[in-house]
Amino acid sequence: MSLARLTGQVHIIGSGLLGTSIALALKQQGVDVSVEDISPGNQALAIDFGGFRKIGENDQPSLVVVCVPPDVTAATVKQALERFESAIVTDVASVKVSILEELLALGLELSRYVGSHPMAGRERGGALSGQADLFVGRPFIICASQNARSEAVAVVEALALDLGASPVRLSPSEHDNAVALVSHLPQLVASLLAGRLAESDLADLSLAGQGLRDTARIAASDPKLWLQILAANSAALLPLLEAYSSDLQRSIHALKDVRASGSIAALAKVLEAGNLGIARLPGKHGARSADYVSLVVMIDDKPGALAKLLTTIGEAQINIEDLKLEHAAGAQVGLVELAVLPASVSKLTDLLAINGYRLAG
Amino acid sequence: MSLARLTGQVHIIGSGLLGTSIALALKQQGVDVSVEDISPGNQALAIDFGGFRKIGENDQPSLVVVCVPPDVTAATVKQALERFESAIVTDVASVKVSILEELLALGLELSRYVGSHPMAGRERGGALSGQADLFVGRPFIICASQNARSEAVAVVEALALDLGASPVRLSPSEHDNAVALVSHLPQLVASLLAGRLAESDLADLSLAGQGLRDTARIAASDPKLWLQILAANSAALLPLLEAYSSDLQRSIHALKDVRASGSIAALAKVLEAGNLGIARLPGKHGARSADYVSLVVMIDDKPGALAKLLTTIGEAQINIEDLKLEHAAGAQVGLVELAVLPASVSKLTDLLAINGYRLAG
Repeated sequence: MSLARLTGQVHIIGSGLLGTSIALALKQQGVDVSVEDISPGNQALAIDFGGFRKIGENDQPSLVVVCVPPDVTAATVKQALERFESAIVTDVASVKVSILEELLALGLELSRYVGSHPMAGRERGGALSGQADLFVGRPFIICASQNARSEAVAVVEALALDLGASPVRLSPSEHDNAVALVSHLPQLVASLLAGRLAESDLADLSLAGQGLRDTARIAASDPKLWLQILAANSAALLPLLEAYSSDLQRSIHALKDVRASGSIAALAKVLEAGNLGIARLPGKHGARSADYVSLVVMIDDKPGALAKLLTTIGEAQINIEDLKLEHAAGAQVGLVELAVLPASVSKLTDLLAINGYRLAG
Repeated sequence: MSLARLTGQVHIIGSGLLGTSIALALKQQGVDVSVEDISPGNQALAIDFGGFRKIGENDQPSLVVVCVPPDVTAATVKQALERFESAIVTDVASVKVSILEELLALGLELSRYVGSHPMAGRERGGALSGQADLFVGRPFIICASQNARSEAVAVVEALALDLGASPVRLSPSEHDNAVALVSHLPQLVASLLAGRLAESDLADLSLAGQGLRDTARIAASDPKLWLQILAANSAALLPLLEAYSSDLQRSIHALKDVRASGSIAALAKVLEAGNLGIARLPGKHGARSADYVSLVVMIDDKPGALAKLLTTIGEAQINIEDLKLEHAAGAQVGLVELAVLPASVSKLTDLLAINGYRLAG
């Protein structure tokens, strides 16, 4: 018996990380899922990995999910609309305006098409990185064009809910502007920063701490995929890059003569705007990060030391809202930064003191 | 009895995060530590907090550690050299060339002065954030000028070792170039990125994931302190900013016309250089991050759930090299990314499966 909201067969085209993860999640809920990939090798791998089936010759899926790279998404959506005459078709590409424009330019009737974008991913791609839980609790953006039938939108929303995701309805341009800010700008900023490390002295890099590591981390993402995403969303990304670049130019100008009138004010403005921006980021469960209090605890760098700390905290029924391990070159001890609700701070501080933990400030 | 390498009295001038942490660490080792601060209120707070003593009228400390903001460091070092005629004097400011230049311009005889920079800090400052373990395992850079006596260098190295830090000898300009890359450039890049969030739509920010959070995190640092650091190290920082800016301009140019000849190649180069840069960053204990394998495990977002997972892992004698909690807007479950040595992967995978954990690819 199926636990799912979706009914009928769901056909996944493209068996990379997203396609495989969607197939795994739907199969787990009892949905009839078929999977295909333009590469026979990739298709066989995904089918072995997830125990999926191929599509049958006369199958008429009720929903087709196109999970292919952005540059071939529109063509694949077109083929799917023509091949399955009654199916709703969605795609999961992380840009939406350019794909809709391509589809409109192809002269297609788009009442059965609704674009989407599950905001989940990993630095690793491929079927073997697929996981049924990839979308749980993540935003799943649904971008219906004016041509889409309301039943088609409802089916894609059912897909989002069956994946455990939180559906969010945005227009294609609202979507592209939002992801340009929260995803594409940080990606390019991090890649440019990490690019400076590529030419640097390895001895200098041995001094790197957690700050550099965090700031540059997402630069490890797949260049081929990101090339397509950045190129496809250049219209929304460019104004943000231009504004970022203006601020950077002002900073460079100020640093060239820090004694000149206005230089210190210009630099202060950049640093203070950074403080403001961080304060506006929502934390876990939609709370602001400012709603949590952080405590830093020192532990031995040994198997079980972190477990022991967290067991102590868990037994006291204190929930950890966020946790970060800090380390630096040569360190043989660990610093654990725990974020808790303000109401839990004094209880946690007392608990740690009683149990002999060394706590910062 | 003192466990320390340092002998005699150590006097700390400036009772903020670094001064208080150094005083705590030395006191713990039985060193005779005195503390002063130009603000009587700050001095009283630190002395209450750490149980330190004030300096006596006729005291002759063997070492003076100047822990004041960069803009008053040179003047404070000068006073210390004049006030304590036989003391070795060091400062802990995070820029070194400009301070040495100021001291030379003051016409001082610098045989008793050795600059230093303990590479440790927190996003929070102040005496109450002080912790004796702040420097354990961290690089402690020692920047002796040509004028410094070798005994003076040895005393500052003893300070580093008494703090549990790893002494690293660099010239002042080597130091300034290294920290410009691993600390000052990331700070400005993160502040500029977070500055873009300050003007943005809050609804867009609700879509933010861990990537943006990590990339922007250090933008929460103290603007007043960073203003001084960036201004004082502008000479080393500017070439890096100019190179970063050139790469950014090339990216903007390419994105303005992605179909133009060379545009895709230019963007690909930026993204690939980012991959290379990340691969060059050393991981924990000096190992490369590529030496670890990451596994992502799903846990309930409840008190004790993370502890239970880590207890299971600790009991199996598997050491976790790095750990990251992931969450996104509205999520009621937690994803834990565990980094382990390659040799531990199959043992960990089996262990998690046996214990019913859901694991990604």
